[in-house]
Amino acid sequence: MAGKERTWTLNDLANIVGGECDGDPSYVISRPVPAGTNDPQGITFATNEKYLKAALETEIGAVLVPVETPQVTKNVIRVADPRLAFGIVLGAFTKPVPTQPGIHPTAIVHPSATVSDSASIGAYVVIEENAFICDNVKILPHCYIGDNCHVGENTILYPHVVLVQDIRVGKKCILHSGVVAGTDGFGFNWNGQYQQKVPQVGGVVIGDNVEIGSYTCIDRATCGDTVIADGVKFDNMVQIAHNVKIGAHTVMAAQVGISGSATVGERNVYGGQAAVSHHVSIGDDMVFGGRSGIFGNMDQAGEYFGLPAVPLSQAMRVMALQNRLPELFKRLRSLEKEIAELKNGT
Amino acid sequence: MAGKERTWTLNDLANIVGGECDGDPSYVISRPVPAGTNDPQGITFATNEKYLKAALETEIGAVLVPVETPQVTKNVIRVADPRLAFGIVLGAFTKPVPTQPGIHPTAIVHPSATVSDSASIGAYVVIEENAFICDNVKILPHCYIGDNCHVGENTILYPHVVLVQDIRVGKKCILHSGVVAGTDGFGFNWNGQYQQKVPQVGGVVIGDNVEIGSYTCIDRATCGDTVIADGVKFDNMVQIAHNVKIGAHTVMAAQVGISGSATVGERNVYGGQAAVSHHVSIGDDMVFGGRSGIFGNMDQAGEYFGLPAVPLSQAMRVMALQNRLPELFKRLRSLEKEIAELKNGT
Amino acid sequence: MAGKERTWTLNDLANIVGGECDGDPSYVISRPVPAGTNDPQGITFATNEKYLKAALETEIGAVLVPVETPQVTKNVIRVADPRLAFGIVLGAFTKPVPTQPGIHPTAIVHPSATVSDSASIGAYVVIEENAFICDNVKILPHCYIGDNCHVGENTILYPHVVLVQDIRVGKKCILHSGVVAGTDGFGFNWNGQYQQKVPQVGGVVIGDNVEIGSYTCIDRATCGDTVIADGVKFDNMVQIAHNVKIGAHTVMAAQVGISGSATVGERNVYGGQAAVSHHVSIGDDMVFGGRSGIFGNMDQAGEYFGLPAVPLSQAMRVMALQNRLPELFKRLRSLEKEIAELKNGT
Repeated sequence: MAGKERTWTLNDLANIVGGECDGDPSYVISRPVPAGTNDPQGITFATNEKYLKAALETEIGAVLVPVETPQVTKNVIRVADPRLAFGIVLGAFTKPVPTQPGIHPTAIVHPSATVSDSASIGAYVVIEENAFICDNVKILPHCYIGDNCHVGENTILYPHVVLVQDIRVGKKCILHSGVVAGTDGFGFNWNGQYQQKVPQVGGVVIGDNVEIGSYTCIDRATCGDTVIADGVKFDNMVQIAHNVKIGAHTVMAAQVGISGSATVGERNVYGGQAAVSHHVSIGDDMVFGGRSGIFGNMDQAGEYFGLPAVPLSQAMRVMALQNRLPELFKRLRSLEKEIAELKNGT
Repeated sequence: MAGKERTWTLNDLANIVGGECDGDPSYVISRPVPAGTNDPQGITFATNEKYLKAALETEIGAVLVPVETPQVTKNVIRVADPRLAFGIVLGAFTKPVPTQPGIHPTAIVHPSATVSDSASIGAYVVIEENAFICDNVKILPHCYIGDNCHVGENTILYPHVVLVQDIRVGKKCILHSGVVAGTDGFGFNWNGQYQQKVPQVGGVVIGDNVEIGSYTCIDRATCGDTVIADGVKFDNMVQIAHNVKIGAHTVMAAQVGISGSATVGERNVYGGQAAVSHHVSIGDDMVFGGRSGIFGNMDQAGEYFGLPAVPLSQAMRVMALQNRLPELFKRLRSLEKEIAELKNGT
Repeated sequence: MAGKERTWTLNDLANIVGGECDGDPSYVISRPVPAGTNDPQGITFATNEKYLKAALETEIGAVLVPVETPQVTKNVIRVADPRLAFGIVLGAFTKPVPTQPGIHPTAIVHPSATVSDSASIGAYVVIEENAFICDNVKILPHCYIGDNCHVGENTILYPHVVLVQDIRVGKKCILHSGVVAGTDGFGFNWNGQYQQKVPQVGGVVIGDNVEIGSYTCIDRATCGDTVIADGVKFDNMVQIAHNVKIGAHTVMAAQVGISGSATVGERNVYGGQAAVSHHVSIGDDMVFGGRSGIFGNMDQAGEYFGLPAVPLSQAMRVMALQNRLPELFKRLRSLEKEIAELKNGT
C-alpha cells in the first residue's frame, strides 16, 4: 500500500542517479513503480526498446532509459545502466521505520547492560544482563536481547527479534522481524528409555553486513560457536542448526535447512527449500537449485540441483527422463517380446 | 484440553442446525467431539450406518445423523447433511479469545494513528505513525502495527502479529499468531565483492476474508505491492516472496513457498511444502499435491503433482515406476545378454 | 560468543564425571570446546588415540580420554565413556537464562488465573483468564499464555512463546522462543463461492519432558485435542496440524510437516523436511530420512527414505539408478537398433 512517500523532481532524480534529465525537470515523482504501472507520479525503468515501448503506452510519469535511447514524448532520464539506476531510485525512496533516539521508557534494560547513547531502543524491548548495544543500533519494539549478547554498530533489529544468550551480532546487520538466534541445538541421545538432552552451552557469532529474514533460526552451538560470516544473506524461515559454519557472502533463499555441524563455504547460493545434511562440508562458489539435497561433501565450484544434488545439466536431463519412465518400460516390454520372437524363430 | 465451554441442550442444538430432535430435548451437551469418543456430554456426527453403529457402541451423548436413519436408543438429531451440521455445532461451541473493548492502558498508540472506538487493542500492542485501525478490529497482545498500516473492519490479529510498514489488511481477516507482513523482499545483486541490497520500498495489500496461519511471511514488494486477493487461506509457515500476486480463494497448506514475482491464479490449492519458482505464472483452478515444484508457467486447470509438477495421474505412474528402476536395469542387462547371444549365434 | 562462564578445576570436573584426574588437579577449566580448538582454558574429549593425538597437537587445557589411554603430557581425565562424560561436562557449564522469582511488575495476570508462588513470570508476559501456572515454571519475557491454558511443574517457556487457548503443557517441558500452540487448524470447505471456515474448538495436550524448537506450530484440534505424548522432541519450525497424535519419545528434525489427523507412533525419528500426509497412521519405531514423504499407513519398524518413503536400502539403490537414466535410455536405443538389424538380417 502506497505510503506517505517523500517526493523528488525529475531533475533531482537525474542528479541522484548521475543521469541526463530529458523532459520537464520540475516534474514531481512520488514513487518508483513496477514496469507497466499506469501511474503519472511513478517512475520505472526500461532496459531496452521493447520495454520502453510498453512503458510509453502507460501513463507512467518517467522512465529510466539507456543513454542511446532516441528521443521520446515522455519524461526520461538517460543513464548507463537503467536497472542499476532504478536500484538507486529505490534507495532514494526508502522510508525508515520509525525510531526515536534513546531508550523508550517502557524498555527494560538490566543495570549490568551497556547501551550506547546513540542507540535507539524501542517500546517493550527487554535487554538482559551484560548485554552490549553499540553506537547507532536500532532495536524495534518487543525485541529480547538476552544475557551476554552483543549488537554491533549500525545494526537494526526489527520487531520481535530474539537473541537468547551469548549471541554476537556484527556491524551494519539487518535482522528482520522474528529472527531467533540462540535456541538450543537439537541434540539428544537415546538412553534406552528416553531421549537424553545433550546440553547446549555454545553461542552464535554473526559477522558484519549480514541480513537475516523473518523467522530464520540460528541455533547456539553445543560448545564453541555457530558462525555466520560477513555479508551472508538469509531469506525467511531458514534453519541453521548448531555448530554450523556459513562462509562469507553466502545467500540462502527461504525455507532452506542446514543440518548440524555442516560447513558451507563462501559465496554459495541456495535456492528455496534446499537442504544440507549433518556434518557435510561444502566448498566455495557453489550454487544449488531450489530444493536440492546435499548428502555428502562437495567442493567443485559450479551449479547443482536435485536430490542428491548433481551438476545442473545432468539433473535437468535426469528430471526430463524421469517423466519418460512409462515410455521406457513400454519400449523394454516391446524389445523383450521381439527378442522372444527372434529366439523362437517366429 | 477441554475448556470451560458453554453448554447447549439437545433441543437447542437441533434448532441451531435446523434438524429434528429425536431423544431427550433437555439433555445437556458440553462439547463436540471426534467420532469414537466415549463422552456422555459430547456430540459427534455419523454420515452413514457404519459410523453410526460405531458411535452407538460408545457412551457418546448425542449423534447428528441423516434424516432417514432408523430409530436408535441414543439421542440423535436428524439432519440433511450431518457433516455440515457438525460444522454448525462447532461454530456454536466456538469460544472467542478474551478481548476487552477499547485500548489497553499499556498499548502504545502514536498520536498520528487512528483507532476506531469499537476496536479492541490488547496489552503491549504498539501502533505506529499514521496507522489506521477500523471498526471492530481486535488486536491481541504484543502485536506491532507499523507505520502507515491499515487494518480493515472486523479483522482479528492474534498475539505477536507484525505488520512492518505500508501494509493494508482487508475486512474480516484472521491473522494468526506470528504472521509477519512487510519484511523486505529478498533482493541482492552481486557486485563482484559483496551482495548489494536492492532497496525494498513497496507494500503488501491483503484482501477481505483472508485467513493466514502462524509464522507465515508475506514480504513487501520491491515497489508497488505484494497482493493477496480476497478469500485466500494460508496455513502456517507459508513463504510469500516480494512482488507475488495470489488470486482470490486460493488455498496453501503449511510450509509452501512462493518465490519472488510469481503470479498465482484464483481458486488454486497447494499441498504442504509445495513451491513455485521466480516469475512463474499459474492460472486459475490449479491443484498441486504436497511438495510439488512448479518451474514454468502453467494454466490448464487440473490436478498436478511432482517435481516438476505434471498431471497427477502421470506423476503417480512415474513415482511407481521409479521404485522399479532396479528391476528395469536387470531386465535391460538380461536383454543385452540375449542379444549378444543371438548375434553370436549361440 | 563465549559468555561469563563459571569455572571448574580439573579435579572438580573429574569428580563430576566420576573419572580419574591425571594432571594438575587445580588447573582451571573455563569452558568445554569442540575438538581441535586451541584453547588452554578449554576441555574437549577424545574417543580414541587418533582424536587424542590431534588434541595433543593443540593448546587445549584438558581432554577426557578412555581409561586405558597411555600417559600423556596433557591434563587428562580418564573415564569409561569420554563422549558421555563430555555431555556431563556440558551440563556443568550450562548457564541458565536469567529469571527472577515471582511475577515481574510489568506482567499482566488475569485475576482468574492461578500462578504458583514458586513460578517466575518475566517482563511483559500476558496471562489470560483461567490460566494455571504450576510450581517452578519459568516464563520468559513477551510470552502470551491464553485463556484456560495450563503449564505444568518445572516447565520453561523461552521468550515469545504463545499458547493461544485451551492448551495443556506437561511437566519439565522446554518450549523454545516462538513456539505457538493453539492456532486454528486449517479446515475449510469450498461452498461453490468461497472457502468456508470449519470452526476449530479443540485444544492441544502436550505431555511431560517434551522439548519444542523455535517457531514450531502445533494447531488446536477441530474438536478434542491435538496430542503430543511424553518425551517428544521437536526441532525448529516443525508443523503439527490439527487432530494429529504424536507418540511418546518421537523425534522430529527441523521443518518437518505432519498433516491433519495423522497419527505417529512412539520412538519415531524424522529427518529434516520430512512430511506425513493427512489421516496417515504410522507405527512405532519408524525412522524416516530427511525429506521423506509418507502417503500411506506404515507400521513395520525400520528405516525408510524417499518420496514415497520405501525401505532405506531400496531408496538408496533407486536414487543411484535415477542418475543413470541417461545411460539407460542410451542402452535401450542401442538394443532397439541391434534388434532391428537382427530382424533385417543385417
